[in-house]
Amino acid sequence: MHINDYLIKNETIFLSKLFNLLRIDSVSSDSSRKDKMQEAAKYWAELLNELPLDVIEIHQTDGNPIVYGEKILNQNYPTVLVYGHYDVMPEDPIDLWISKPFEPEIRDGKIYARGADDDKGQSFIHWIALKYLLDEGMLQCNVKVVLEGEEEIGSSSLAKWLDEHKDKLLAHVVLVSDTGMIAPDVPTITMGLRGLTYLQVEVTGPNRDLHSGLFGGAVANPIIILSHIISKLIDENGHITIPGFYDKVMAVSDQERKKLNEAPFSEEDYKQALGVRELFGEKEFTVLERIGIRPSFDVCGIWGGYTGEGAKTVIPSKAYAKISARLVPYQDHKEIAQLIKSYIEQIAPASVKVKVDILHGGQPYVMPSDHPAYLAAERAMKEVFGREPVHLRSGGSIPIISTIEQKLGIKSLLMGFGLESDAIHSPNENFPLQNLWQGVRSVVAFYSHFPKVMHEN
Amino acid sequence: MHINDYLIKNETIFLSKLFNLLRIDSVSSDSSRKDKMQEAAKYWAELLNELPLDVIEIHQTDGNPIVYGEKILNQNYPTVLVYGHYDVMPEDPIDLWISKPFEPEIRDGKIYARGADDDKGQSFIHWIALKYLLDEGMLQCNVKVVLEGEEEIGSSSLAKWLDEHKDKLLAHVVLVSDTGMIAPDVPTITMGLRGLTYLQVEVTGPNRDLHSGLFGGAVANPIIILSHIISKLIDENGHITIPGFYDKVMAVSDQERKKLNEAPFSEEDYKQALGVRELFGEKEFTVLERIGIRPSFDVCGIWGGYTGEGAKTVIPSKAYAKISARLVPYQDHKEIAQLIKSYIEQIAPASVKVKVDILHGGQPYVMPSDHPAYLAAERAMKEVFGREPVHLRSGGSIPIISTIEQKLGIKSLLMGFGLESDAIHSPNENFPLQNLWQGVRSVVAFYSHFPKVMHEN
Repeated sequence: MHINDYLIKNETIFLSKLFNLLRIDSVSSDSSRKDKMQEAAKYWAELLNELPLDVIEIHQTDGNPIVYGEKILNQNYPTVLVYGHYDVMPEDPIDLWISKPFEPEIRDGKIYARGADDDKGQSFIHWIALKYLLDEGMLQCNVKVVLEGEEEIGSSSLAKWLDEHKDKLLAHVVLVSDTGMIAPDVPTITMGLRGLTYLQVEVTGPNRDLHSGLFGGAVANPIIILSHIISKLIDENGHITIPGFYDKVMAVSDQERKKLNEAPFSEEDYKQALGVRELFGEKEFTVLERIGIRPSFDVCGIWGGYTGEGAKTVIPSKAYAKISARLVPYQDHKEIAQLIKSYIEQIAPASVKVKVDILHGGQPYVMPSDHPAYLAAERAMKEVFGREPVHLRSGGSIPIISTIEQKLGIKSLLMGFGLESDAIHSPNENFPLQNLWQGVRSVVAFYSHFPKVMHEN
Repeated sequence: MHINDYLIKNETIFLSKLFNLLRIDSVSSDSSRKDKMQEAAKYWAELLNELPLDVIEIHQTDGNPIVYGEKILNQNYPTVLVYGHYDVMPEDPIDLWISKPFEPEIRDGKIYARGADDDKGQSFIHWIALKYLLDEGMLQCNVKVVLEGEEEIGSSSLAKWLDEHKDKLLAHVVLVSDTGMIAPDVPTITMGLRGLTYLQVEVTGPNRDLHSGLFGGAVANPIIILSHIISKLIDENGHITIPGFYDKVMAVSDQERKKLNEAPFSEEDYKQALGVRELFGEKEFTVLERIGIRPSFDVCGIWGGYTGEGAKTVIPSKAYAKISARLVPYQDHKEIAQLIKSYIEQIAPASVKVKVDILHGGQPYVMPSDHPAYLAAERAMKEVFGREPVHLRSGGSIPIISTIEQKLGIKSLLMGFGLESDAIHSPNENFPLQNLWQGVRSVVAFYSHFPKVMHEN
């Protein structure tokens, strides 16, 4: 049966299965919902059993369970490891939701629910695709499936579990739908993810808050010192001035830069959407390059002194900033964190004490554009969407992707079907049915092209 | 009778009268205590009546009442206008008080109560001194007394009232005890007060908080821009780099600088008390000069973005700072505020919107050291303390002092008897009995010297 006919025939039953998954409020950051995590894992195990896969396991961890399944059809077939997560972000602020976050409903062709896109909806794409391929006897890959319940809180149990199951997880590629398309009908392969380092800086001046009249001019103001420090980390053109910061930044070929800039993008629309007169950043790179292949530096928060209404004349004892950098291959997040920390400590004047804490980090990730899975995905998406997919270097980070590469040595193919308007992590998260079905068609096509590309190589 | 015998004889009754004043919880910032303000004003009117003065008036205002009294003895006598305030700061945090803030008690030779120093205790010095001079028939000045109830909240009713009573208030000097001594037994005349300007800066980048991964490198981060702006207002040596800022700063003679630096001061002790390894500020001036005769610039508060625990990767839409400058003669607070505002607007890049609000200000004040009242106070304090008084340029601001000069054209002599350890505005405010009695002796001696100096001139 053609996939289109198959989807028409089974639409109601598939949506009802997805809705059952969406009804489970598996919010991983809420410790009072531990039982919901178990429930979601159990439900996924049932789903895998319906495909059916041959091995289905629920692995308990110190955190939330990991669901594992596999179907080994033939030792000569290539092996695809599907990754997804069943945990979701909190539903707050609840009163901004039009329909209830855990009572999915369809409005204007979109499924509204927490997790509708991220990642219950997107991971369910793979279930439907595999169901079709198995029902029709068309699957020519071995398939392993891993579903975790801690993606939104750092994937720490999965990272540990990967170490313990390296052999079991051998595969040619990890297939992930947890990213987006740059516009509806524009197929997108996310070929790079930036890494991240995140630090907190504490500047201490005098040992207590002082009267700015009695002491102003005599003692260092920690806010002023912190401002000077920040202004020495990044200049007014967006160039990061921490010595050595750019040393290991991967050179990107003119060809790849050209490909990257082929994505439809209007600087005017972008500025208008953000409400700014001018953008900011390294002039020698385009906006798409600046958020894709270049590292960036931001201060995510700053505080100190009097922040209430009106005027209070105080020299505060302390000032704080949360700073983060987005990294690109081959920057190492631990190295960069240390670089930033040392430089801040070095430039801090003797009139203050400075404490720099490294809060967390993740490695950058890149998928080579000649990887067989990449080529298969290109062909598959072109077939389904009728146009070449866009090659996106996303500015965001999915730390588990680089962790998987580190621990298993396997590249991930990020073929995602979300849209900016899906409002993931926000009230009224949604996923257009159109994207769900195009996702299924794309994954089905991927499974048909992947073995062919593998044979060609 | 000698003042010492007089004080011994009347100590109990005087303290009991002061304690009655301290028992009234006349907290001006607490609108639920309006009746206490009336009660304190009425009590002061009774005290003035006991001196006795000839004219005693309670003037109701839009805010708290002003108590006025006068004793005109002889048209040829010089006239002294005594200023004080009967309102006090809130008693919070109440649980840090050892004895209750409005139940005065004496421990270790100190009166403990809210207002014990600021300014009920210090203004009561003048009541005792006048009582003695009148009882003994020794007063050779005309005296006018003004007591207000809004000093701690901006003196706005008094400023208006001064306009309406310019003729009534004619005097040769305003005598004020609302400042301190730099150490016990070191008589101090505060000859200058810095002015103040206070502004709030709002920097707006994108029209909403953005994901730092997806947008980092492409759009201006308002915290980074604000840090760059701040670092352009004051350099790392404490030199204020706002063009024109120092233009009107009064040159101070070498002689006055020398006199100023004669005050006992240990930089090592100062650093140790503040817990800093190094001080901060203009190297070409001493610490006493930096907080006395030089203007200063501080950021009193800063905030923006994520300030909670852990890491949130956000480019905030907005960042804020509260900035203030302390001013010296002849800087004009309105002019300086405008200078700062214009400069910030000028240096703000087009990638952000900047809004600068001028919150409030006060003019700097200086008492010329050849003013007759100044000379009289010098002689009086030397007589009482056995040593030359220190000439302090205080870094703090008492806006009403420059307001009085502006509106009435009369200089104020700031002869205060408080100590740093009196903890004004804090829990366990206190005033040593020693300082109370030395204050009375000094004021009595002032009234004997002032007419003589006036005659010499």
